Amino acid sequence: MPGYENDKDALLKRLARIEGQVRGIERMVDEDRYCIEVLDQVSAVNKALEKVALSLFREHLDHCVVNAVRSDADGGRAKLDEAALAIERLVKS
Amino acid sequence: MPGYENDKDALLKRLARIEGQVRGIERMVDEDRYCIEVLDQVSAVNKALEKVALSLFREHLDHCVVNAVRSDADGGRAKLDEAALAIERLVKS
Amino acid sequence: MPGYENDKDALLKRLARIEGQVRGIERMVDEDRYCIEVLDQVSAVNKALEKVALSLFREHLDHCVVNAVRSDADGGRAKLDEAALAIERLVKS
Amino acid sequence: MPGYENDKDALLKRLARIEGQVRGIERMVDEDRYCIEVLDQVSAVNKALEKVALSLFREHLDHCVVNAVRSDADGGRAKLDEAALAIERLVKS
Repeated sequence: MPGYENDKDALLKRLARIEGQVRGIERMVDEDRYCIEVLDQVSAVNKALEKVALSLFREHLDHCVVNAVRSDADGGRAKLDEAALAIERLVKS
Repeated sequence: MPGYENDKDALLKRLARIEGQVRGIERMVDEDRYCIEVLDQVSAVNKALEKVALSLFREHLDHCVVNAVRSDADGGRAKLDEAALAIERLVKS
Repeated sequence: MPGYENDKDALLKRLARIEGQVRGIERMVDEDRYCIEVLDQVSAVNKALEKVALSLFREHLDHCVVNAVRSDADGGRAKLDEAALAIERLVKS
Repeated sequence: MPGYENDKDALLKRLARIEGQVRGIERMVDEDRYCIEVLDQVSAVNKALEKVALSLFREHLDHCVVNAVRSDADGGRAKLDEAALAIERLVKS
């Protein structure tokens, strides 16, 4: 089971809302809305996605990583390295 | 006409692809895919949105701002301030 | 004259404070302070530098770019492109 | 001992270099250098600090967090929460 198992419904709702926001941006572009308004909506989606990323990361540490470290030190360390690299990709994104 | 007028089709295509990526993340969550894979997809969408934001900004400067500054110095300055504040919101997002 | 000419003293003060914060981080590391405390100081310096970057950018638009666009449309457009590329480097940093 | 213990010298060297870069920016401002050049140096320092932050984080997970989780599950979970919150502050910075 993934780390987000317990919050799966809430996570799916957040993603559906983000999908709706992206569709809203497409509509704005289609209607020739002002650049800055469009840009602000893109920033808003970015912020929402970042929150999703951080909560995914937190659940991952709290469940998958804790379990891996407890059952096997080496496997745990590999999981931590993997998590650190994923955060690197997020920060650089 | 907004600054992205000439690239409207390309912009809509990019946004449609991003919408599809978000839907892909929902599917991954629905299928209980591994946290890190989901997180990496979120980082990828973030990166794609950032590119959209930067190109919106660039077109805005190149068209709306140039025109405003040329037709009226004060109006142009107001447009530049507005653009600087939008970038601030993007950087902080 | 650069766009930050009028705020040069304030800008130098902010940079001197940031330099002091970096020295503070070196001291913390030297004293074996707890990783999370060090990390939080790094985040604080990052935030301070971002503010400096955004205000440099704003002054640049307000002075150098406005003047360039007003005195020469082509030169102005080149300055705006240059500014958009600098923001791209900041956002990706 | 902090997680960065084994890399302390390298870390101090990187921080000293960053301090020098900040001093370099002060000098540039003092000499009225062009806004975009100054801005690019600020972006470069930001990037360097981010690398320091990510390597601090990685060492912290690899040492402090692994040890905490292995010696005590609850203490380990607290350490992971603390690490997740520190990353949140970094990402938002």
